[in-house]
Amino acid sequence: MVIVMNPNATGDQIKKVIVRVHNAGLRTHVVEGESRTIIGIIGDKKAIMALPIEALEGVEKAVTISSSYKLVSRDFKPTPSVVDVDGVKIGNGSLIVMGGPCAVESRDQLMEAAQIVKAGGAQFLRGGAYKPRTSPYAFQGLEEEGLSYLAEARAATGLKIVTEVTEVAAVELVASYADMLQIGARNMQNFHLLKAVGRTGKPVLLKRGLSATIDEWLHAAEYIVNEGNYNVVLCERGIRTYEEYTRNTLDLSAVGALKHLSHLPVIVDPSHGTGKWHLVRPMSMAAVAAGADGLMIEVHPNPAEALSDGPQSLNPGNYMALMHDVQRLAEFLKNEVR
Amino acid sequence: MVIVMNPNATGDQIKKVIVRVHNAGLRTHVVEGESRTIIGIIGDKKAIMALPIEALEGVEKAVTISSSYKLVSRDFKPTPSVVDVDGVKIGNGSLIVMGGPCAVESRDQLMEAAQIVKAGGAQFLRGGAYKPRTSPYAFQGLEEEGLSYLAEARAATGLKIVTEVTEVAAVELVASYADMLQIGARNMQNFHLLKAVGRTGKPVLLKRGLSATIDEWLHAAEYIVNEGNYNVVLCERGIRTYEEYTRNTLDLSAVGALKHLSHLPVIVDPSHGTGKWHLVRPMSMAAVAAGADGLMIEVHPNPAEALSDGPQSLNPGNYMALMHDVQRLAEFLKNEVR
Amino acid sequence: MVIVMNPNATGDQIKKVIVRVHNAGLRTHVVEGESRTIIGIIGDKKAIMALPIEALEGVEKAVTISSSYKLVSRDFKPTPSVVDVDGVKIGNGSLIVMGGPCAVESRDQLMEAAQIVKAGGAQFLRGGAYKPRTSPYAFQGLEEEGLSYLAEARAATGLKIVTEVTEVAAVELVASYADMLQIGARNMQNFHLLKAVGRTGKPVLLKRGLSATIDEWLHAAEYIVNEGNYNVVLCERGIRTYEEYTRNTLDLSAVGALKHLSHLPVIVDPSHGTGKWHLVRPMSMAAVAAGADGLMIEVHPNPAEALSDGPQSLNPGNYMALMHDVQRLAEFLKNEVR
Amino acid sequence: MVIVMNPNATGDQIKKVIVRVHNAGLRTHVVEGESRTIIGIIGDKKAIMALPIEALEGVEKAVTISSSYKLVSRDFKPTPSVVDVDGVKIGNGSLIVMGGPCAVESRDQLMEAAQIVKAGGAQFLRGGAYKPRTSPYAFQGLEEEGLSYLAEARAATGLKIVTEVTEVAAVELVASYADMLQIGARNMQNFHLLKAVGRTGKPVLLKRGLSATIDEWLHAAEYIVNEGNYNVVLCERGIRTYEEYTRNTLDLSAVGALKHLSHLPVIVDPSHGTGKWHLVRPMSMAAVAAGADGLMIEVHPNPAEALSDGPQSLNPGNYMALMHDVQRLAEFLKNEVR
Repeated sequence: MVIVMNPNATGDQIKKVIVRVHNAGLRTHVVEGESRTIIGIIGDKKAIMALPIEALEGVEKAVTISSSYKLVSRDFKPTPSVVDVDGVKIGNGSLIVMGGPCAVESRDQLMEAAQIVKAGGAQFLRGGAYKPRTSPYAFQGLEEEGLSYLAEARAATGLKIVTEVTEVAAVELVASYADMLQIGARNMQNFHLLKAVGRTGKPVLLKRGLSATIDEWLHAAEYIVNEGNYNVVLCERGIRTYEEYTRNTLDLSAVGALKHLSHLPVIVDPSHGTGKWHLVRPMSMAAVAAGADGLMIEVHPNPAEALSDGPQSLNPGNYMALMHDVQRLAEFLKNEVR
Repeated sequence: MVIVMNPNATGDQIKKVIVRVHNAGLRTHVVEGESRTIIGIIGDKKAIMALPIEALEGVEKAVTISSSYKLVSRDFKPTPSVVDVDGVKIGNGSLIVMGGPCAVESRDQLMEAAQIVKAGGAQFLRGGAYKPRTSPYAFQGLEEEGLSYLAEARAATGLKIVTEVTEVAAVELVASYADMLQIGARNMQNFHLLKAVGRTGKPVLLKRGLSATIDEWLHAAEYIVNEGNYNVVLCERGIRTYEEYTRNTLDLSAVGALKHLSHLPVIVDPSHGTGKWHLVRPMSMAAVAAGADGLMIEVHPNPAEALSDGPQSLNPGNYMALMHDVQRLAEFLKNEVR
Repeated sequence: MVIVMNPNATGDQIKKVIVRVHNAGLRTHVVEGESRTIIGIIGDKKAIMALPIEALEGVEKAVTISSSYKLVSRDFKPTPSVVDVDGVKIGNGSLIVMGGPCAVESRDQLMEAAQIVKAGGAQFLRGGAYKPRTSPYAFQGLEEEGLSYLAEARAATGLKIVTEVTEVAAVELVASYADMLQIGARNMQNFHLLKAVGRTGKPVLLKRGLSATIDEWLHAAEYIVNEGNYNVVLCERGIRTYEEYTRNTLDLSAVGALKHLSHLPVIVDPSHGTGKWHLVRPMSMAAVAAGADGLMIEVHPNPAEALSDGPQSLNPGNYMALMHDVQRLAEFLKNEVR
Repeated sequence: MVIVMNPNATGDQIKKVIVRVHNAGLRTHVVEGESRTIIGIIGDKKAIMALPIEALEGVEKAVTISSSYKLVSRDFKPTPSVVDVDGVKIGNGSLIVMGGPCAVESRDQLMEAAQIVKAGGAQFLRGGAYKPRTSPYAFQGLEEEGLSYLAEARAATGLKIVTEVTEVAAVELVASYADMLQIGARNMQNFHLLKAVGRTGKPVLLKRGLSATIDEWLHAAEYIVNEGNYNVVLCERGIRTYEEYTRNTLDLSAVGALKHLSHLPVIVDPSHGTGKWHLVRPMSMAAVAAGADGLMIEVHPNPAEALSDGPQSLNPGNYMALMHDVQRLAEFLKNEVR
C-alpha cells in the first residue's frame, strides 16, 4: 500500500501516520515528492489491508498495490490447474461443454434435453433445480424432484451433472446428486455458501457476480480454496453495463485476464452473457478463440415453452450446428495455432 | 407486455405468437404499425412474465410495460407506510438517524460509540456482528459476542439496535438480539434470506444491491412482504459506476423514485455511499432535503483504529456537528417548506 | 507514479526500468517489498505522465498517484473562485438559478418562458439555439434566429443568457449574443472547442460528460483555464449507469468532491440529471443542501408541446413553487447552518 | 411508441393524450389492460420521436418500440455492405488489419512501424497526427507534419492510410492525405464533424463512443450516411464499465448485434479495448471468431519509448506472431466453418 499525503500535510501528521503503521508491525518507506510526501508500507498483506489509513489526518488517499488473494493466484502456483470432475478434466487444453436447459421443468423436458446435449458431444448436463428469480412470483424450480431427474439423466447418458446450489442448507443435498456445484452470479459473495461448498471438496463452478470486479471474483474463489478445495472453475457470464441491447455485456477479456492472474480454469456462458440466442454462436466461437477452457450453453427442446430464459436458449438444431463449429475450432486452435 | 415483431415476420409467425399467448390464458391486442406488427398482451402479470416470447420465430423483442411487484407498490397502497420499531416510527415525517461503527470490534469500542450516538440524538445504534468481507482474510465480525454487546449498549442508552444478518441459519439468533434486521447490499437477492427475515415479522432494513435497479430492489422487498411482513424500510447506499473518486455513487434520485413507486419508507447511507468521511456531511444534508425518512451514519470513537471502513467513519466531533445540522434542516423542512 | 514490478521480475528488468525513468529526467525511489519491488517516481508531473512504463518487461502495473491538472486544483488556489457574469456572481454563497426551455423553439415560446423565469427570481435564462441530438431527424435548433430571441428576452427581462455552443466555427457568433457559453456533455472532451471558448475570455459553463470521471472533467476545465480564462463554472448533469428508471444518475457527491479538489464553482442540473419532472424538485433541494452554487432548471410554458425534453421540464406552476422552496432553503442554510 | 398511463389516470387525461397524438398527425390504438390503459402510436417515426408525451398528465411512461435510424439498418438494406477503400474491400469476408502506432511521433518511428505493419500482412497503416488527450499537457500530435509522414509511408509500402480527424476545420486537410477518415470515440456524437466527413464521400471509420449504446452508435452512423456517404465502417473499441483491470471492456457481442441490426462492416480494436498488450492476442482471435471484418492493432517499433499508449502496443515480434495466427484463423473460418 502507498499512502499519499495532502500537499499541505504537516510534519506532525506525517509522523502520526508512520507511527500508526509501525504500531501495526509494518515497515514504512518515506518518499518526499515534488509537491507531497508518499509513504510506502511493507509487510504482511493482511495487516496492511486492515489499516484504516485514510481516516488519519493529512492523508489524501491510500493506494493498494497488490491484491490480498493468494492461493488462487498465478504467483502462488505458476502452472495452470486442471479440475477433474469424476474423470472429465477441465483446463487440460480440451474444450468442455456444459449444455442443458436453464431450469429443470419436468422429467420429460430434461430427459429430452439430455439426449440432445449428449448427441452434440457435450460432457456436462446443466439445469437448475433451485432458481433464484428476481420476482417472487416467477418459477422457482422443482428442488429435490429436479435433482432426481438430473441424476436419472446422468444414468441414461453418462453426462456429468452441474447444478446450482443457492443456500447453505441445501449444499449437502445438492452435493449428493451433482458432480459439480454451481454458485450463481447473485451468490458470488454469499460467503457462507462459498465456505460451505469449499468444505464439500466437490468441484465448484463459480460464476462471476453481476457487477463483480475480477479482483473480487478471485477473492470469492479464495474463500472456497481457503477451505482446502482447489477444484474451482471460474465462469464468465456477463457483467452489468449501461448497454440495453444485450442482457449483460459478456466480458471476454476476463478470460485472458484470469489466465494471467490465476491458475484456475475459465469457462464462458454466452447464453446468460448476451440474453439473445442469435448471439450465442458468435460469442461461443469468440470465447473458444479467446482461450476459454469450456462453454456453458442453454439448450432447450422447445425454447418457446421454456419456463425460464427461453429467449437465450438454443433449439436442438442450432445447438447441434454450434457444437460442430466450436469443436472444429477448438481442434484447429489446439493443433495448428497454439 | 408488448411484443414487437420483425418487419419481415410472416403472417404465420404472427399467428403462432398469438396462439402461444392465448394458450397461456392471456388476451392479445394486435396493432399493425407502419413497418411492423405489434402485439399487446393483456392479463395476469405473473402469467405474462412467464412467457418466453422472444424465443418464438419472427419476434424482434418483448417490452415489459409494468413491473410484477405488487404489495410494495404505491398503486396497491397509495398512502405512505410507517414502520414502527418498538415505538420508534420510521416514515412519519420525522428524521430518524441510525449511527454507530461499521463493525462491533470490542465491548469498549461499542459502548463508547453508543454514548456518542445517543448524545447526538440518534434513535438507532448500528454495528455489524457479522461482516461480509471481500477477502477471507479481513476481519469477519465478533458474531454472537458482538450481538451481546449491542444488547448491552441498548440497555445502557435506550437506542434501538439495527444489525446485519447474513445467513438463514443466524436469523433466529440475530432476531433475538436486534430490534431491526439489516439485509446488506450483497444479500439483496439472497432470496432464502429475504423469505427468512420476512417470516420473523421483525422490521427489516433492506439495503440496495451494489448494481440493483430500483425495480429489482422493489422485487426484493416484495419477497419479504410476500411472507406477511410489511415492516420494510429501504436503504439507498450507493451503486457501482465507473467513477473512482467515490467508493460508490450515491443515487439520491432513488429517494424520490421510491416515494413515487412505493409506499415504503426510505433512508440513506452516505457513509458507504461515498466512502469518504468528508462527503458524509454534504450528502446527509442532501438526503434529508431529497425527502429521505432517515440516515444511516458511520460513527467511530477513533476512526483511525477502526477494523473496517475507517476512512468513511465520522469521528465524534464531526458526528455531533452533523447531527446538529441535519436535525435543524429536517425541522426547517417540516415546518416551513413542505 | 508508482511502478509495481512482477513478483518474478529479474534484477536486470528492474534496472532497465530505473534507467528508462532516469533518462526522462526523473528520479526513482526503490522499495523492496515482501514479494515484489516497487519503484516510486519523483519529478515533473508532465514528464511522468508521458512515460509508457507498463510496456517495459517485468512491470505489472503503474499506479498514478496524483493527477496532472494544476490550474483548476485547490492545491494551486486554496480559496473558492467567484465567477462574475456581467455583474451576477456565481460562487459567492448566494444561490444562482438558470431557468428556461431546453430548446428555443419560437419567439413567443421564449418570451413567455423568460417572463416566467424572471418572475420566479432566477438570474439566468437558458435555452438552446444549437441542439446536439442523437438522431439526425430530431429538431436541431433555430441557430442564429434562436440567439436573437435570447438577446431580445434579455433586453426585456434583464436576465443573463447562457446558451450552448457546439462547434468552433460558431463560438464567435454565440459569444456575441450570450453572457455565458455552455459546453454540453457530449462536447466535454471536444478539446478544440474547449480551447476556443477559453480564448474568448467569456464565462463558460462546463457540463460533465455522460461518462466522464471527475478527474477527466477537471482536466477538461484545465484546457479552458490553460488558455487564460478562469471564468469556468462546472455543471453536474447526471452520469450514465445501468439504472433505467432515471434518464441519468445525478451524482450529487460530485459537488462535495469538486469543492474538495478544485476552487471552481459548481452548479447542478436536475432536469437532465433525472429526466423526470417529478424528480426535479427533490433533487434541486438536495443539490442546494449538498452545497451547490446554483441550479439549472428546465422550464417550459407548456411542456406537453415542447420540441425537446418535455418530460423533464417544469410547467410554470411547478417552477414557481420550486423557486420559492429552493430560495428559502438557500437562505436558511446561509444564515443558520453554515 | 407505446404510452403507459397511470393506473389512476382519468378518462379525461387519456382523452387529452389521444388528442395530442392525433394533432401531431399520428394514429392511436387504445388497449384497456387489467390495471391500466395503454396507447399505441402509429405513424411516421420522426413525428413520434418529437412527441413529449411523458409531460402530459396521467402518463406513467412512454416506451419506444423501434429506433429512428433508417439508412444504416438491416431492415432498409438486407445485404451486408462492402466498403471499398481505394481497392481494399472491407466486409467481403476477408480479414482486414489496420496496424500502426497510436500516434505518429517522428518520421523514423512511422517509417519503421510501416515496414513492420506491411511485413505482417496488414492492409492499412494507422497512426494519429491529431491526438485528443485527456490532459492539455500530454502530447497532442504532429498535425500536418504527421500527415505527411503517413503519406510518405503509404508511398513506400502501398498500405492504405487511416487516421483520425478531430475537428471540422481539419477535415479537408486530413482527407487530402488519408484514404480513410477515423472518427474517434470522444467525437462519436460530434454531429458537425459527422456531417462534415459525410460530405467528403471518403470512407469513414466510426469508433464507438466510450459510453455509447449500440442504438446511439447507429444513429451517429446515420448522420454520416444521411449526407450521402455510405462508406462507413464501425469500430468497437471498448466501453466504460466499473471493471478496473482492463482500460475498457471490449464488447464483442456488439459485432453480432451490429450484424443483426445493420448492414455496415464492423471491425474491432483490442488495443484500446483492453489497454494491455498481453490481452491483444486473445481478444484479436476472439474478435475474428465473433465475425469481425477486421482488426485495428497498435504496433510500435519500441513500445517502451512510445509517446502515447505504450502499454497496449505490440512490439514487432508479438505483432508478427499475432498476424500469423489471426490470418490462419480467418482462413480456417472462411473455408471450413461458415
